[in-house]
Amino acid sequence: MYRYKLTIEYDGSNFSGWQKQEGEPSVQETIAKALQKFCGQELEVCGAGRTDAGVHALGQVAHFDAPKEYPEYTVRDALNFYLQGSGAAIVKAEKVLDDFHARFSAKERSYIYRILNRRSPSPLMAQRVWQVPLPLDGEKMSEAAEKLLGKHDFSSFRAAECQAKSPVKTLDEISFNCSGEEIIIYVRARSFLHNQVRIITGTLVQVGLGKLTPEDVANILKAKDRTKAGPTAPPFGLYLYQVHY
Amino acid sequence: MYRYKLTIEYDGSNFSGWQKQEGEPSVQETIAKALQKFCGQELEVCGAGRTDAGVHALGQVAHFDAPKEYPEYTVRDALNFYLQGSGAAIVKAEKVLDDFHARFSAKERSYIYRILNRRSPSPLMAQRVWQVPLPLDGEKMSEAAEKLLGKHDFSSFRAAECQAKSPVKTLDEISFNCSGEEIIIYVRARSFLHNQVRIITGTLVQVGLGKLTPEDVANILKAKDRTKAGPTAPPFGLYLYQVHY
Repeated sequence: MYRYKLTIEYDGSNFSGWQKQEGEPSVQETIAKALQKFCGQELEVCGAGRTDAGVHALGQVAHFDAPKEYPEYTVRDALNFYLQGSGAAIVKAEKVLDDFHARFSAKERSYIYRILNRRSPSPLMAQRVWQVPLPLDGEKMSEAAEKLLGKHDFSSFRAAECQAKSPVKTLDEISFNCSGEEIIIYVRARSFLHNQVRIITGTLVQVGLGKLTPEDVANILKAKDRTKAGPTAPPFGLYLYQVHY
Repeated sequence: MYRYKLTIEYDGSNFSGWQKQEGEPSVQETIAKALQKFCGQELEVCGAGRTDAGVHALGQVAHFDAPKEYPEYTVRDALNFYLQGSGAAIVKAEKVLDDFHARFSAKERSYIYRILNRRSPSPLMAQRVWQVPLPLDGEKMSEAAEKLLGKHDFSSFRAAECQAKSPVKTLDEISFNCSGEEIIIYVRARSFLHNQVRIITGTLVQVGLGKLTPEDVANILKAKDRTKAGPTAPPFGLYLYQVHY
C-alpha cells in the first residue's frame, strides 16, 4: 500500500460540494473517477473536511492508497490530465507515511472570505467574491471580529443542520486584509462548525454597514442563539485556504 | 445632447471582442442593447479601442449621447441591471463635455498581462491567466523588456492583419510585478499595434524559459520581422487596464 497526500484546488461553482452524493457532481467523486482512470481500479478518496456547494478550495487535502508506487509528479500530472475541464486540479501530490490521515491528522484549517465592496458587480470576479454594494467600515468589522477570538460556545454562528457534537470551538486567528475595493477575512482554527465562517462573515458585514456594533457581536456570541446573528454569507466568497498538519 | 463616459469591465471569454460583428456576441453590441432598453431608442456606443476575442477589460472606456439628462448613478445602475449575467458591467458613468471622445481624446492606454507560472492548472483562474508550466526567470524577462522601451519600429511585434498606418510606436512603460506564482506585466503607450502586447509577452516568455536572451530581443526588434519574435500569447491573460485622458 502506497499512501499519497493530494493538495487540491477547485472552483466550487462546478460542484455540489466536496462530499460524494448520489446524482450530484461532487469534488470527491470527480477525483475518485480520475484516480480510477489513472490506477485502473476504484479507490477511496478521503478528504480533510467537507465544503458546501459553491465553496471554493485553494488547498483542500485528501489522501488515497495506491496499489503500486508512482513518482509524485506522475500522480499529480496524470490526475490533472484526467481532471482537465472538471473545475478541480491537483496542486501537489506527496508520498506520505501510512499513518497520515487527511482528516484525523489535520491540526488546523484556515479559510479566507473575499468581499468586493463596490457598487458595480465585477464580471471578472463573478462567483469568486461576495459583492457588497454599500460602503463597509473595515475597521469596525475588524474590531468586532476580535470579540470572537478564542474558545467560545459558537451556537449563534452555527447552521441548524450542523452535526458537530459540541458548539464549543477555538478561533485561533481572524484577520483582515483590505486593499482597494477588496476585503479579505482570514480565519484559522482546529475545526469549524457548519457555516461558522459564513455566519461570522454575514454578521461582520452587518457591523461594516453600521447595523450592528462590535459590542453587539460580543452579545450575540453570549446569546448562543443563531437567530441573533447576521445572515449566512453566500458560499462563493469562501475558500478553504489551507489544511495544517 | 448629453454625453456620457462609461468605464467598463468585462470577461472577454463571453465575447467575440469589443467590436460589433454580425452574428457574434460583442461587448459593444451588448452595451448598446442595454442602452436601448434604458433610453428606449437605439444609440451608438463608441469605444476607446478594440479588444480581441477572449481579451478582458478592467477599464475599457466608451461614450454615448443620451437624448435626455440622467444622474450619473442612474446610468450606471440601470445599465448594470440590463447587463446582469452578460459578462460586462459599468464600473463608472460620468457626464462629460460634448468634445470628449472615448477614442480620439485618449492620451494613453495601459494593459496588464497575467502569467501563472506553475506546473498545475488553476481552476479558479482558468481563462484569467496564461498558465506557463515551466519555470520562468522573471529577472531575465524584465531585463529583456527594457530593450523595448521607447520609440521603435515594432514590425517584429505586429500581427499580420494589423491595420495601423505606421509600425512605429512609443512604449512608455513596461514593468513587472512578480508575487508568488504570478507574473504581471504592465505596459503603457499612446497606442499599440494589433497583438503587440501579446507578441511582446510571448517573446518575453521565451526569454524567461531561457530560449532567448535579452540581447536576442534587442536584435528581434531591429529585425522588423514578425517571424523572428516569439509566439502570440493567448488572449485570456490580457486585460485592457486603463485608458488615460
